[in-house]
Amino acid sequence: MRFFEDIQVGEETDLGAHRFTREEIVAFAAQWDPQGFHLEDDAAERGPFGALTASGWHTACVWMRLYVDRLLASRAAREDAGQPVPRFGASPGFRDLEWRRPVYVDDTLSFSSRVVDKRLLNSQPEWGLVISRNEGINQRGELAYAFTGQVFVERRQGATSAG
Amino acid sequence: MRFFEDIQVGEETDLGAHRFTREEIVAFAAQWDPQGFHLEDDAAERGPFGALTASGWHTACVWMRLYVDRLLASRAAREDAGQPVPRFGASPGFRDLEWRRPVYVDDTLSFSSRVVDKRLLNSQPEWGLVISRNEGINQRGELAYAFTGQVFVERRQGATSAG
Repeated sequence: MRFFEDIQVGEETDLGAHRFTREEIVAFAAQWDPQGFHLEDDAAERGPFGALTASGWHTACVWMRLYVDRLLASRAAREDAGQPVPRFGASPGFRDLEWRRPVYVDDTLSFSSRVVDKRLLNSQPEWGLVISRNEGINQRGELAYAFTGQVFVERRQGATSAG
Repeated sequence: MRFFEDIQVGEETDLGAHRFTREEIVAFAAQWDPQGFHLEDDAAERGPFGALTASGWHTACVWMRLYVDRLLASRAAREDAGQPVPRFGASPGFRDLEWRRPVYVDDTLSFSSRVVDKRLLNSQPEWGLVISRNEGINQRGELAYAFTGQVFVERRQGATSAG
């Protein structure tokens, strides 16, 4: 977890991999997306993918959890080293979220995040906006999930006046 | 839950309202987005919004649950009436998701979905793509959440050959 000035366009971060078990797929769907093809084999066989698949929002939430776990670990490392730690920033939203391929039971997605742009906004002088392209690739090497994210990252103190 | 041919551009559906309780905000964040400002008042006071707020993915998941509840109720009504029921369709993704305002403890969002476009794809002859603009408005009348969704909706049998 770094300050805006320390983040470089082009950097790519490996967020780790996650296996989507049947139990987890069904539990998520029962709570947030109870369509038959996310819950039961019979309904899934007649559904759009012919077998049980994870809710797309489940994939999105797993990405977020891995991203935040990484932020928290990096934050803890800075604190241990006595380095200044930026505040958590909010996100104004996302663009171009693609559920490119279904996520079947026991598929493992490897997630990554690549910085594609950085912007300063006059309306938010203490923060900069970091734009990233994020992907989840399955064990067959296929792109299953992608989106363009945006998050506000704190600028170093004095960065505003120093320009 | 209707067939592609029965859905009109411009239709708006009220998906109902949801109150975001503290317990629910913290439980969702603990599982999927454990940043301090979604979990604890102290961290939230120092965070981007000055008070505890829901994860943006929580808002997204609540929209999805209300949308699916409505689909399932409409599906059950068709089945009871002996009408043909379309299959569930998948979504290729969404665009322009905006977390416009924070969702604080006990905020109530009223969700809606408006059909903004319909498209036929040569690659998916049995399905049509329905594009919707979806919103969540809080109890102060402020737009808190919005996104442009896409979902495949089954065409009536014979619709393909009938043109």
